[in-house]
Amino acid sequence: MHIIHVQIHVKPEAVEGFKTATRANAQASLKESGVVRFDFVQQQDDPTRFVLIEVYRTVDDQAKHKQTAHYTTWSESVAPMMAEPRSSAKYIDLFPEEAGW
Amino acid sequence: MHIIHVQIHVKPEAVEGFKTATRANAQASLKESGVVRFDFVQQQDDPTRFVLIEVYRTVDDQAKHKQTAHYTTWSESVAPMMAEPRSSAKYIDLFPEEAGW
Repeated sequence: MHIIHVQIHVKPEAVEGFKTATRANAQASLKESGVVRFDFVQQQDDPTRFVLIEVYRTVDDQAKHKQTAHYTTWSESVAPMMAEPRSSAKYIDLFPEEAGW
Repeated sequence: MHIIHVQIHVKPEAVEGFKTATRANAQASLKESGVVRFDFVQQQDDPTRFVLIEVYRTVDDQAKHKQTAHYTTWSESVAPMMAEPRSSAKYIDLFPEEAGW
């Protein structure tokens, strides 16, 4: 698996709008054949901070995701909501086995 | 869901031992009734860095996890492997729906 964790910090007034836009993107992304998971979580002690946990089968599947209309729509709509630039790190899976993702 | 992301940085010589110990802990943890996921990933550009993505049904289920023998065994065995103290953050789930975790 090719896994991306995206750390996101939004402006306080943008929290609800960001949640709506990102849920819509996650639902559409999960329908892509190369997307295994697209989890979206909110930090308990700071509701302006979020993480996207994107699990792709291959590196190429991430590239395909960035070419979708729903990614473009999301990226453009959330750009003005950011309190600071997004950061991300790439991972490989160690557990569970492939069928468990 | 009550979700914990644990950021872990180990000494270079401890990478393989850490992977073995943590896979064993993840397998045992996933059998706990309150543990929904226990994902273990390794950073692509720095193989000494890992993340545990622990998904519990409730806060109490995390407390129960910390009382298990496999948690104690893991915690004690990996303590000397750390390059720096572990850090963690707590999250709530926004997507997918409960059945998707």
